Amino acid sequence: MVSGHEIVGKVIKVGSHVKKFKIGDWSGTGCLVDSCRACENYQEGLEQFCLNGRTATYNALGQDGKTPTYGGYSNTIVVHEDFVLRVSEKLDLAAVAPLLCAGITTYSPLKHWKVGKDHKLAFLGLGGLGHMAGKFGVAFGAEVTVLITSPEKEADAKKLGAHKFIATKDAEQLKSAIGYFDFILDTVSAPHDLNLYLSLLRVNGVHICVGVSPTPYEIHAFSLIGGRKSLAGSLIGG
Amino acid sequence: MVSGHEIVGKVIKVGSHVKKFKIGDWSGTGCLVDSCRACENYQEGLEQFCLNGRTATYNALGQDGKTPTYGGYSNTIVVHEDFVLRVSEKLDLAAVAPLLCAGITTYSPLKHWKVGKDHKLAFLGLGGLGHMAGKFGVAFGAEVTVLITSPEKEADAKKLGAHKFIATKDAEQLKSAIGYFDFILDTVSAPHDLNLYLSLLRVNGVHICVGVSPTPYEIHAFSLIGGRKSLAGSLIGG
Repeated sequence: MVSGHEIVGKVIKVGSHVKKFKIGDWSGTGCLVDSCRACENYQEGLEQFCLNGRTATYNALGQDGKTPTYGGYSNTIVVHEDFVLRVSEKLDLAAVAPLLCAGITTYSPLKHWKVGKDHKLAFLGLGGLGHMAGKFGVAFGAEVTVLITSPEKEADAKKLGAHKFIATKDAEQLKSAIGYFDFILDTVSAPHDLNLYLSLLRVNGVHICVGVSPTPYEIHAFSLIGGRKSLAGSLIGG
Repeated sequence: MVSGHEIVGKVIKVGSHVKKFKIGDWSGTGCLVDSCRACENYQEGLEQFCLNGRTATYNALGQDGKTPTYGGYSNTIVVHEDFVLRVSEKLDLAAVAPLLCAGITTYSPLKHWKVGKDHKLAFLGLGGLGHMAGKFGVAFGAEVTVLITSPEKEADAKKLGAHKFIATKDAEQLKSAIGYFDFILDTVSAPHDLNLYLSLLRVNGVHICVGVSPTPYEIHAFSLIGGRKSLAGSLIGG
């Protein structure tokens, strides 16, 4: 098994039917290398929700049901042009790569829920995804708050351009944020109490999970009902 | 304590500042008799989410923080005109009463999420709220399916005008509904496995809880993430 799903590089060869790329182009491929290319979700640019089974970039089987896929930790990879993105030559390739999973995973929900300048956005988790969530949130004009577990992370969070910081273990700071946010983007993949974060949402607020906790979330009905709130999930992007 | 929050009757007396009602008018009052009448949620017609504390119709304290409220199982009740609805004299009062809690509780989310003719709506629970959910869903033009636990409930469900019936304990029927619904309106107030119902939603589908389970819902992250689905809650209405 060869892993790697944030892949950038130069096109070194193209098939005779390829129209979008020529040799020498800079390009990128993310978490998917194929889908049925027919179902309604594909038609809407949501290949990640292919009704007939998306093909993950590595350790999966191709649409023929038997050819194994191998990822980007290799010198070369062969990908259908529909699952290849053009990359500007002005960019730093090493900095582009994380856009292909962490980037699209946070960009996609922020765009889907139209997060922008009228919104107060918080994000949870200061790893690869949180880093992207913060930068996109700032770029889209939202007021961005980082919910951090320990105050020493504030310096890192500041580098992303975030406007506010709340240490979630500080009862006073937390209390001041009750009913405050329109959106919370949750990038944490460890168990955590979502009822706490749902209380920080205002009426109609949405808590969006892109991290996957290994244990089920325990949600009290009134955490949602009490303010017509939503708990949503989002998976990479089209 | 005098309970009752689905109240209909004739106006027998009005205060000197009352503008909307006169003696003899038919009227109704639901679950709320007051709110701060100032906060942003009140301004948007969402008194049920009053930021300073709504006043429930019975067994609560008025906005003065000390006067107890008494509900509709009495001969008379005094309510501020802002929390009184006009009722047409053409209607059957006994049939109007349930609109004031069960009715608004199901009407409000269906309107908020704009459920209509392009949608496949399912509802769960065939009690007071489910009854209303079914009738509203049909009236709004949605294709309405009743998710029932036992086939003998189908006759009752048919009276509401529902188009389809799925016995959730029948594996074959359930399998045919995977990824099918745009919305599920969940009126059940007993513990139940929401992951099962989330699997019946299509991409971008919304499961809306108006019933309150006494135990937390256990939600697997991928039940939401796997199709950009939402679990939402809704509380009565404005």
